[in-house]
Amino acid sequence: MDNGLEILDVAECTALLDTRSVGRVGVTMAALPAIFPVNYCMLGGDIYFWTGPGTKLSAAADQAVVAFEVDDWDSMEHTGWSVLVIGRSEVISEGPEGVDLASLPVHPWAGGERHHAVMIHPEFVSGRRVGI
Amino acid sequence: MDNGLEILDVAECTALLDTRSVGRVGVTMAALPAIFPVNYCMLGGDIYFWTGPGTKLSAAADQAVVAFEVDDWDSMEHTGWSVLVIGRSEVISEGPEGVDLASLPVHPWAGGERHHAVMIHPEFVSGRRVGI
Repeated sequence: MDNGLEILDVAECTALLDTRSVGRVGVTMAALPAIFPVNYCMLGGDIYFWTGPGTKLSAAADQAVVAFEVDDWDSMEHTGWSVLVIGRSEVISEGPEGVDLASLPVHPWAGGERHHAVMIHPEFVSGRRVGI
Repeated sequence: MDNGLEILDVAECTALLDTRSVGRVGVTMAALPAIFPVNYCMLGGDIYFWTGPGTKLSAAADQAVVAFEVDDWDSMEHTGWSVLVIGRSEVISEGPEGVDLASLPVHPWAGGERHHAVMIHPEFVSGRRVGI
């Protein structure tokens, strides 16, 4: 427990990351912090999403260390959990072993040009649960 | 429109911020980006939440510029929106004019010691909607 929150172990965090399809990427944009939602998939323990030109692509092109957060809440019950991943982001031109990039099981909801696949390799994973 | 996303104006963003009770604060933690959920309220255009000792309190004590994000999604319909606020965070010892700090309409869901009220004054607000 940490200040009223249950700390989740890495296995629980990994399992929870698999349950959601929208996460949030935390990057630095012109020296200011910013948070952008993405729809994503997990594959071999890594996080994948598609993006177009912009802040998330720039961060990935620079192999910046980014934050990635996923959560789920019940506002009536006051329960929920969150998982925070920190890792290096990277623009990839090939899928992970045995997976064609075009076959990644994630598709952007928005239209527009999102032809760049980004991978985040988790280096630090933590999670908390509230109101069990 | 921006790359398949509808850009929301500030009035829409402000109205959407009023509709949610859980948001996410993006801070820097030992030179690494991090994202933590908080339950919050809006009052006079500012964001308020309670916190205990830790990263969010340190950021506020330093009057750090933080990101604050709120969103809502329909995974079946592939629709949703997000609002991003960037602003200076501040530990406050008094409520906004006419409001006693103890009467702020927000209460932490987690137990533990959360006796520090933090305010974020939005300096930059943006929002996007997908799949209208």
